[in-house]
Amino acid sequence: MKEIKALFFDVFGTLVDWRTSIATEARAMLAPLGIVVDGEAVADAGRDQYQPAMEDVRSGRLPFSKLDQLHRRNLDVVLKDFGIDHVDEATRGNLNLAWHRLTAWPDVAEGLSRLRRTFRIAPCSNGNISLMVDLARRNGFAWDAILGAELARDYKPKPGVYLCAAAAFDCRPEEALMVAAHSSDLAAAAAAGLGTVFVARPDERGPGQGESVASTPVDLSVRNLTELADLLGCH
Amino acid sequence: MKEIKALFFDVFGTLVDWRTSIATEARAMLAPLGIVVDGEAVADAGRDQYQPAMEDVRSGRLPFSKLDQLHRRNLDVVLKDFGIDHVDEATRGNLNLAWHRLTAWPDVAEGLSRLRRTFRIAPCSNGNISLMVDLARRNGFAWDAILGAELARDYKPKPGVYLCAAAAFDCRPEEALMVAAHSSDLAAAAAAGLGTVFVARPDERGPGQGESVASTPVDLSVRNLTELADLLGCH
Repeated sequence: MKEIKALFFDVFGTLVDWRTSIATEARAMLAPLGIVVDGEAVADAGRDQYQPAMEDVRSGRLPFSKLDQLHRRNLDVVLKDFGIDHVDEATRGNLNLAWHRLTAWPDVAEGLSRLRRTFRIAPCSNGNISLMVDLARRNGFAWDAILGAELARDYKPKPGVYLCAAAAFDCRPEEALMVAAHSSDLAAAAAAGLGTVFVARPDERGPGQGESVASTPVDLSVRNLTELADLLGCH
Repeated sequence: MKEIKALFFDVFGTLVDWRTSIATEARAMLAPLGIVVDGEAVADAGRDQYQPAMEDVRSGRLPFSKLDQLHRRNLDVVLKDFGIDHVDEATRGNLNLAWHRLTAWPDVAEGLSRLRRTFRIAPCSNGNISLMVDLARRNGFAWDAILGAELARDYKPKPGVYLCAAAAFDCRPEEALMVAAHSSDLAAAAAAGLGTVFVARPDERGPGQGESVASTPVDLSVRNLTELADLLGCH
């Protein structure tokens, strides 16, 4: 492996368990309105809207909009599809902010803290800066900077998002590793010249419904971030 | 005062003592080449090139370039003006990176740490992201994010730089305070709608050669960041 200076991290699914958090909040917030929902189904339906919403920006059909705004549009679609379009504005706003309150997988805070002793670390996520800040505060992530979509004003897997992160840290693409639980993200990062680390999050979309093995060639494959810290000699 | 959610900080002069650090490094790096310089004069001469260089970007004469690149151009001008144009490329590169190794004023790490318990905090500096990251690591600044010129792709005091920082933290301009040791910075922030805090750094440009009193109306005036933390109830 070449000399690595920086590690970039995907966040949703790779560092935080979006599905359980969104499902729990959806159930809890809709119950007082007399609405009983399958929280996981709401979470999955929202996530199904995720790529199409970003594709509107990537393709140029929509000017760059923060992920919070796209999430809100997606939420409105989901509530309509679930036949609960009468949910009030305040509840919608609060439910949308559930994305700022996601809980990390248990290895992440320790793994990041160890990795940071040796490398510059930053999220390279499609989430906006304030969302990343809230997740970091909630889960004890100590980032050097928040990089990703809002800095690049475009969405992954467009190559510019990875290249913008590397440029911000003054490193060539091959001096950075992209760490993610999704093969599509890693394939795009590799195409942009970055090294790649696959982290298995087999339960991301429900038990056994995440990727347990990368379906694209990667430089390293680990089960969690503490294993990555061990492999990279960060003790 | 309205409800404040975020604090933005100027960095050069306000948080770090650029003059002493640059003077010391210039002296130390040039001595092995047999060059004896007045380090403070070199530092001041570099700083004199600072506003004109950024003005080339603000005016549109130069596309956005990171401050590291402008600093390098300024350094070449200074070495020529001092009649030491024979300094080699490696020394120039290293001397330019002295801006990444500036030392903080003694109150800063503690002050920021206390302020962060209540507010989102970020630099809103003209320095580039990697420069801010290195200063943070060296001096123990724990930022929520690195905002400022590289995110806005323009230089203070253009209003877009302050507004871009506020937007990244999802706050209206009046929900943020700009903290700086320079009246010109605070006047521009106030014109963009932000609240303002003046920090006296009377020795920034040499003993008694910094601003000890703001020359523009400000919301708060303090002697250091621990006093600001006291005033804002951050214990």
